[in-house]
Amino acid sequence: MNPQVVTFLIKCPDQKGIIAKLTGFFYKEGFNIISSQQYTNSQEKKFFMRIRLASDSTVVLSKAELENRFETLAKSYEITWKIDYGSKKQKVAIMVSHTSHNLYDLLQRHKEQKLSCEVVVVVSNHLKLKPVADMFGIPFHYAPVTNETKVEQEEELIELFNSYKIDLIVMARYMQILTANFISHFPERIINIHHSFLPAFQGANPYKRAYERGVKLIGATAHYATENLDEGPIIEQDVERISHESTTSSLKDLGADIETLVLSRAVNFHLNDQIIVDGNKAIVFPETGE
Amino acid sequence: MNPQVVTFLIKCPDQKGIIAKLTGFFYKEGFNIISSQQYTNSQEKKFFMRIRLASDSTVVLSKAELENRFETLAKSYEITWKIDYGSKKQKVAIMVSHTSHNLYDLLQRHKEQKLSCEVVVVVSNHLKLKPVADMFGIPFHYAPVTNETKVEQEEELIELFNSYKIDLIVMARYMQILTANFISHFPERIINIHHSFLPAFQGANPYKRAYERGVKLIGATAHYATENLDEGPIIEQDVERISHESTTSSLKDLGADIETLVLSRAVNFHLNDQIIVDGNKAIVFPETGE
Amino acid sequence: MNPQVVTFLIKCPDQKGIIAKLTGFFYKEGFNIISSQQYTNSQEKKFFMRIRLASDSTVVLSKAELENRFETLAKSYEITWKIDYGSKKQKVAIMVSHTSHNLYDLLQRHKEQKLSCEVVVVVSNHLKLKPVADMFGIPFHYAPVTNETKVEQEEELIELFNSYKIDLIVMARYMQILTANFISHFPERIINIHHSFLPAFQGANPYKRAYERGVKLIGATAHYATENLDEGPIIEQDVERISHESTTSSLKDLGADIETLVLSRAVNFHLNDQIIVDGNKAIVFPETGE
Amino acid sequence: MNPQVVTFLIKCPDQKGIIAKLTGFFYKEGFNIISSQQYTNSQEKKFFMRIRLASDSTVVLSKAELENRFETLAKSYEITWKIDYGSKKQKVAIMVSHTSHNLYDLLQRHKEQKLSCEVVVVVSNHLKLKPVADMFGIPFHYAPVTNETKVEQEEELIELFNSYKIDLIVMARYMQILTANFISHFPERIINIHHSFLPAFQGANPYKRAYERGVKLIGATAHYATENLDEGPIIEQDVERISHESTTSSLKDLGADIETLVLSRAVNFHLNDQIIVDGNKAIVFPETGE
Repeated sequence: MNPQVVTFLIKCPDQKGIIAKLTGFFYKEGFNIISSQQYTNSQEKKFFMRIRLASDSTVVLSKAELENRFETLAKSYEITWKIDYGSKKQKVAIMVSHTSHNLYDLLQRHKEQKLSCEVVVVVSNHLKLKPVADMFGIPFHYAPVTNETKVEQEEELIELFNSYKIDLIVMARYMQILTANFISHFPERIINIHHSFLPAFQGANPYKRAYERGVKLIGATAHYATENLDEGPIIEQDVERISHESTTSSLKDLGADIETLVLSRAVNFHLNDQIIVDGNKAIVFPETGE
Repeated sequence: MNPQVVTFLIKCPDQKGIIAKLTGFFYKEGFNIISSQQYTNSQEKKFFMRIRLASDSTVVLSKAELENRFETLAKSYEITWKIDYGSKKQKVAIMVSHTSHNLYDLLQRHKEQKLSCEVVVVVSNHLKLKPVADMFGIPFHYAPVTNETKVEQEEELIELFNSYKIDLIVMARYMQILTANFISHFPERIINIHHSFLPAFQGANPYKRAYERGVKLIGATAHYATENLDEGPIIEQDVERISHESTTSSLKDLGADIETLVLSRAVNFHLNDQIIVDGNKAIVFPETGE
Repeated sequence: MNPQVVTFLIKCPDQKGIIAKLTGFFYKEGFNIISSQQYTNSQEKKFFMRIRLASDSTVVLSKAELENRFETLAKSYEITWKIDYGSKKQKVAIMVSHTSHNLYDLLQRHKEQKLSCEVVVVVSNHLKLKPVADMFGIPFHYAPVTNETKVEQEEELIELFNSYKIDLIVMARYMQILTANFISHFPERIINIHHSFLPAFQGANPYKRAYERGVKLIGATAHYATENLDEGPIIEQDVERISHESTTSSLKDLGADIETLVLSRAVNFHLNDQIIVDGNKAIVFPETGE
Repeated sequence: MNPQVVTFLIKCPDQKGIIAKLTGFFYKEGFNIISSQQYTNSQEKKFFMRIRLASDSTVVLSKAELENRFETLAKSYEITWKIDYGSKKQKVAIMVSHTSHNLYDLLQRHKEQKLSCEVVVVVSNHLKLKPVADMFGIPFHYAPVTNETKVEQEEELIELFNSYKIDLIVMARYMQILTANFISHFPERIINIHHSFLPAFQGANPYKRAYERGVKLIGATAHYATENLDEGPIIEQDVERISHESTTSSLKDLGADIETLVLSRAVNFHLNDQIIVDGNKAIVFPETGE
């Protein structure tokens, strides 16, 4: 919608005058601030900012110049930063196994241009969902795996994703545990959906365990995958009320709707540059109306 | 799942002994009660029941015999009733205009056997969504309409739906007001999704009006269509929190997810025989775990 | 409101004709069924019923006769049952430590006749909340405790509760772990509020741990206390959305509102005979409109 | 908690460099920005800011000097602004009629220091809730009213509130319609709770009308009172799910809990300087963690 909007995600130690300094910099360089969101963690003395800028017609700064000048500022304030020029869509790979609802949902939103990205490949360790990728005209890559072949299969996938220049991997109910090695190739670039309200029911069979525990709400959690299973930074969660009439099977159906909403929101936050990861937490700035 | 399960929906004046009488009848006729749900409106002295029965192998009653015997009981208790043998799927027509999210969602659930019905046709006054019907292999019927041709177009649709023996019409964002004549052909058989939390923002442009009013939550409502626009029995509603950052455009996107959930739930309740309409209200019995 | 309403809570193996048998019994004995709710766990072949009855003016059955006759039926169907004649309010003791919001809320609802019970005593291991009990004119019992005196203190409380003929103990943020011995004196008669969405953050400091884990929703859980800490049958749960701006301190404030709602609902369900405990689960029948 | 924190609420036409200018000003004057929240309505080209500042020990600016200097800036940018030094608690009057839940809740939060204000008087047109004010030691002012005496009564109240130097009036279920004249004395300083999800069921008897309409959720709305009944800027809303079993009476009980939460949140937002009113909308900045 705003292809010429530049987004900075900024993280640094909290320090006096930091907002004035940063907004002053962008003003001086001729940018108009479309939205600016800050978060100060005063306990840990950290500062975070998401700032969206429209470049003036009079701005003649090249990308390299802008980045060079900002880097000078960044150094003196110990700033870690990312920039997104909004000029190219992120390339996304979706990984699935047997369950289709998240895949349908993501492909439909993609097709209807509700997800600002290019879904370039669907990868699965099973053939079952190939027809879904086919319906939406997305290449399907079959990558079967056994315990014995996991290392090889992951190497093949790393190569595949690198060849596609994948920006984001979405595990849309991919029922394999990825190794730390695989994950280390895509830091803060793998989003997983877990079908429980984490940290409750971490691990296998969350709906069955929810039924057995007799909880009154079930949930889903989207998080960045890290080497510790189901323990990465949480991006989004939601829940729905259930009753004693719910069975493991009806929980799965109800849960599917929660998983679908939660994962699509999380992917959207990521693609829209709304997230800054800080240690094991995801700071998610709300959408701004532009 | 349980093709041999028979469902009765029952409505009558409240009267002493009615549950004993009804459950006694089914017991005597050799049925096993899988679930029984009752609602007594004590203010209006009305009784409602949804009862699901499994027929014993020893039951040799034909459908005609069962219905005859029940009708005898029904007469003496002034019972209005419906029966569903679960042996044939309801035939569903989906009507749409330009907006695709509800259509995708319903067709995907249908394809994945999450909706217990047969979607036989998609009807639209525009060609825009034909490719969606095509993707899912559902016949698409194009029925353009102007104010001048509305009567004719509706006659054509009535004929179409009758020829298909349609049980349920789902208005999945069909942006035409149906006439009282059309609606009278399908009483309690047309479900509409309205993109607001009724009775707030009845009528046109609910998201724009929600934005202008500055509400803090937006919603969607699925209801049976009656001759009074947006005033039929409400089947399901839900809402989501918004903020001052929300624009009319972002409300539409957020609202799409609510519409999708609310409509699919309502259609499911209908197909699953969970609803008894009483005047302008829909009594929706919760799902039972079977 | 309906002092003459009799409530039966019934639990037995599922068996053919059980509803007809039970409703037939009550009809024959001259009762009018005000509401009847059943739940069949078909996987475990168990049947549960909550039935509310109005006695006819012509019913001359004494309580003893009713119970005798029902017991005959109960034996042949292996029914476990409870009866509540609604003629006397349950006696409630509230246990607290330092935190006041649940205590205020329960005492206010009690005073305004929104809780159908008699709060007879507030017990605490601290003096801090005595003024709150005083404001509402409820006797306050101070029962300080150390690790060394826990056994004695609990013996004193058991005696106190027995002398008051306490029907229900509400742990409204009582920050001591009760022993298995204490709990065994009041089976299914102690309701505890835990300040997390169980099974997440079982044990101490749930808000701090929620903050550290970076969850996006926090919750509260009301459950029956059993000898396994925070593992008893869950009666009610709810959650609220939080953001990265939330601190441990703001989580406590927000959580207080969830705890208040969840505990008062759970106490209400219990007092209103809406709960049947089955193993480690609480079947909570929804309120009926009478 | 942070008595030395100064809060500015700022509103002006959107213009290039405005954030840099404002944050630069505060930096230059020696303030540390604790939190800064901005909202740009790009459609209407308006800019809003809530900024919280800690004064440095080296800042020797008097209040008058600070305000003078800021006013110079404000003039050149057409800024409308408010400042809160956090040094004195706002004085609050609570108006009620017969219904007690909101009054209890507000007085309890006030007593437990969860509302940063001083409740100085409870006003009612009935004597019924005097005992509640008495319990909490708050002066109770009885101001009976009839249609004939409304003008006089309101004059008396205006005088009363002025004599108390009331900053905020909370209509906690005050069941009288205030005149435009009364309201004009306290612009953006009267918060009302309406017991429906506005704009649904504006006006009288919302629960009865919700029951009759058969909605599936009920709600409550806190808004600033303006001369148009129930049409002022909405501060907060929430809803709860209901079922066909709900009666007008049970809706009132359930609704009471929603009203309580919604009103206390709205009052908190106001006292915490989180709200900027813009025309008929309330921009409510989320709480920041400090």
